[in-house]
Amino acid sequence: MNDQDKAKTESWVQYISMSPPSLNNNTADVDRLTAQLKQQMEVQSISIDRSVMISLPRVLRKSNFNVRCILFGYDHCYQLIDVQPSNECIPVYGLAIDLGTTRVVLRLLDLVDHSTITETTMDNPQGKIAPDVLARIHYTDQPGGLDHLQRLIIDAINQHIQHICTAQGIDSQHIMCMSIAGNTCMTHLFLGFPPQAIIREPYIPVINRQMVCSCDDLGIKIHPQARLFIFPNIGSYFGGDLISGILALDMHHQSEISIMVDVGTNAEVVLGSKDWMIACAGAAGPALESGVSKIGMTAGPGAIERIQMNNLSFTWQTIDHKKPIGICGSGFIDLAAVLFQSGMLDIRGKLVPDQCKERLLHINDIMHFVVVPAEMSATGNPLTISQVDIDSLIRSKAAMYTILNTIAQSVGVHLSDVSTFYVAGTFGAYIDPSSAITIGMIPDLPLERYRSVGNTSLEGASRVLLSRKDIESVSDIHNLITYMELNVNQEFMNRFSAAKFIPHTDTKLFPSVEVPSI
Amino acid sequence: MNDQDKAKTESWVQYISMSPPSLNNNTADVDRLTAQLKQQMEVQSISIDRSVMISLPRVLRKSNFNVRCILFGYDHCYQLIDVQPSNECIPVYGLAIDLGTTRVVLRLLDLVDHSTITETTMDNPQGKIAPDVLARIHYTDQPGGLDHLQRLIIDAINQHIQHICTAQGIDSQHIMCMSIAGNTCMTHLFLGFPPQAIIREPYIPVINRQMVCSCDDLGIKIHPQARLFIFPNIGSYFGGDLISGILALDMHHQSEISIMVDVGTNAEVVLGSKDWMIACAGAAGPALESGVSKIGMTAGPGAIERIQMNNLSFTWQTIDHKKPIGICGSGFIDLAAVLFQSGMLDIRGKLVPDQCKERLLHINDIMHFVVVPAEMSATGNPLTISQVDIDSLIRSKAAMYTILNTIAQSVGVHLSDVSTFYVAGTFGAYIDPSSAITIGMIPDLPLERYRSVGNTSLEGASRVLLSRKDIESVSDIHNLITYMELNVNQEFMNRFSAAKFIPHTDTKLFPSVEVPSI
Repeated sequence: MNDQDKAKTESWVQYISMSPPSLNNNTADVDRLTAQLKQQMEVQSISIDRSVMISLPRVLRKSNFNVRCILFGYDHCYQLIDVQPSNECIPVYGLAIDLGTTRVVLRLLDLVDHSTITETTMDNPQGKIAPDVLARIHYTDQPGGLDHLQRLIIDAINQHIQHICTAQGIDSQHIMCMSIAGNTCMTHLFLGFPPQAIIREPYIPVINRQMVCSCDDLGIKIHPQARLFIFPNIGSYFGGDLISGILALDMHHQSEISIMVDVGTNAEVVLGSKDWMIACAGAAGPALESGVSKIGMTAGPGAIERIQMNNLSFTWQTIDHKKPIGICGSGFIDLAAVLFQSGMLDIRGKLVPDQCKERLLHINDIMHFVVVPAEMSATGNPLTISQVDIDSLIRSKAAMYTILNTIAQSVGVHLSDVSTFYVAGTFGAYIDPSSAITIGMIPDLPLERYRSVGNTSLEGASRVLLSRKDIESVSDIHNLITYMELNVNQEFMNRFSAAKFIPHTDTKLFPSVEVPSI
Repeated sequence: MNDQDKAKTESWVQYISMSPPSLNNNTADVDRLTAQLKQQMEVQSISIDRSVMISLPRVLRKSNFNVRCILFGYDHCYQLIDVQPSNECIPVYGLAIDLGTTRVVLRLLDLVDHSTITETTMDNPQGKIAPDVLARIHYTDQPGGLDHLQRLIIDAINQHIQHICTAQGIDSQHIMCMSIAGNTCMTHLFLGFPPQAIIREPYIPVINRQMVCSCDDLGIKIHPQARLFIFPNIGSYFGGDLISGILALDMHHQSEISIMVDVGTNAEVVLGSKDWMIACAGAAGPALESGVSKIGMTAGPGAIERIQMNNLSFTWQTIDHKKPIGICGSGFIDLAAVLFQSGMLDIRGKLVPDQCKERLLHINDIMHFVVVPAEMSATGNPLTISQVDIDSLIRSKAAMYTILNTIAQSVGVHLSDVSTFYVAGTFGAYIDPSSAITIGMIPDLPLERYRSVGNTSLEGASRVLLSRKDIESVSDIHNLITYMELNVNQEFMNRFSAAKFIPHTDTKLFPSVEVPSI
């Protein structure tokens, strides 16, 4: 098969030319169309909604049996969504959604030329009711709680679809398929599935496998026959957003071993190649998100995202170049790295008063390090981080490294054997790997092996809308992954304790990190 | 596999006992259930509506993972319709429908013990708008005509479902699957498919293949997830009612050659065995239904259904033993046979005045034979048939025999090789084969080879609700059948002319028929 033929069979948009029926060739309309579609797409079975069958005789005769078909599905579940005369250039769009706990990103794609029409981000409206996964699940214990959360997200998606369509001057009826990649809880809430068992031992989702749903059944107002692909979960703590990410990165096609890390409240890690994959998730993140220190904040305007030190003097860079109002995860990691390199933080992660000198303040008997003096901050007060904040960061970085170390050891892989280290999500977009290596958060690999890969969840969700091959890969990826429960046992705790030093008690693991001699 | 296991795997009602989930066995609810169902039923894939998934966690935990599942479908399209705790004895019903042009028969079945709960017949309400197939299709040319006809039949079915449920004291939500067998046009009208191309060259239905639809989508008010199986057509003139009949008669399992004939306005014939089948349909019937003679009528109270003659005196039998008001098809065939045997009708089908004597009347210059004198009829007038009526019957019987002869010759089978001759429908229920043989309408086989088989369409529709094996057979039957277009060419016309004699010009074809020498 040449490339053109391949692209043809892999597309959701299929052009079909049939011989018109005659007395000697009197196959019925639906059977005539599906026979040719099955042959052309090399699939065994195609489902057609009754309403599509109703319109078929008219469309076939109007087009003299030359039609464009839009299909969607996988394996044995191909659905014929629409049939149009080939010569009518009706646009065909798909909508990919990254369904995050905090943020939701929608990307509209043209399924004919595979271009991105537009992309838009919105807050997950469920956040106003309950900020995190746990609170949302508890909210569903209330009567009507689940319906309310589901309604909020679906209404918001419908509103944004309308905004997009109005802004782009397109008809929402021309959006013919959708894909959603989200964590297990967000996916459950979106589908109206009771999520309570996810957070209660033994942690059981309603479904892990991928699904195709009717958009109309869910109340999503696009083409009436449009279908929605839901990425599968591996379990309660390893969701479809990660599977989508693996697809986007083509990890399932790589011969060499790579690793993908997505850090939010949890660190989710997958390690492997085309032959095997192992995944785990663990609490690693509080210091890396907002709320951890008085100045800690989610990445946003005025957040210090990058810190350097020259001759004992700090230079910093804030998001949108605003006056600093706080420090986000990536800035905090930079800060810890420079403090360690300058000797102001010792290998145990403790501030060294003799080195910090006048940059130290004592507030309520707790040591604070002044990052930004009052006169330079947006708040008029000095921006400080406390020893407590630093202790928290040290625990987070130790947890991160221990998780990486544990998953690698479980399959007998040394972290130095990892050919590519993908850092996904907003965390990956901002973190400076050299700082993270300096504090011993991530393994001491050559920097070029680190790749910040952005929103891989959205990217994977887009790919299934553009290629049958990619949607078929999703279940392959799902089947490839072994999920490892992180047993927090004595061995894990020993590793964790060893990782609480900067960079590590075993400095041979971090040969590139120079430990200052004070 | 023993018989009990076989019955178990073939039922739509499956009992499933699962291990409850644990930390070491944390498969998601839907995946846990489907894995076990697939294994138990030996199928590859099972679809589940979102609403069933929503209720699943509660049902599984309430029943401690012992559930009864109701499924329906075929091949790769099994649908999980409902899941109930095993220990709650919720009834499970199925509704089989024979969707006739004139009459519709509904049979309610218990899917657990396979008993028939009740059966009810109604007039097809579309008959008030347009009596026959042709008139109904023309009616759909009007704006809203198709919707109107579809609404009529669906509303009537809903009403009858309510009547049945009220009378039986059952809940319509417990009807979980349905099947419909009807001719191609009735099926199209029921599904809302435009039927216009059925009657216009080259005679193309919207679909021939079998389908499973959502009852809810069609507006049928039973279980919200209930599915409906639609029997496939072979073409515009050989409908799902015939396929259903073949299933009911097990013709597709028989080694010996059998034939099934269903006579209405058209004669539909299928000939074959487990290895091959050939089918055709042709106009054969006007004389055999109502409207053909002034006294001709559809079988009903007061219709003469049986006629004998002893010593030149007639005895007759009417339906419901009412005073005679007319004569139906089977009575007319008996009459022609006795008239021929007594010499009152010659081999050309003409009344013989010398033999008929005072039983002849001349009305408007046309000879009429008095079947029932005025004083014995319910109308107070003599019931007569005219030479014109008889000519029409002769044409019908000649057409019938020619069709049978043509289909048999086309595959090199002699009609005497047919082991069983099934006569389906109401015609089959009343006709006396010996009379039909006497006039040369059907082949001169030993009488024991003739079997009147009643409503095989309803019977087949019932069988797919009771057995997976039977529903899987439907596509096998469909694939087995070759449809033969009856080309009315010179050869056909020659055969037809030869068959217009009583019993036939070639009397060797009817050795048992004694031709009276007058």
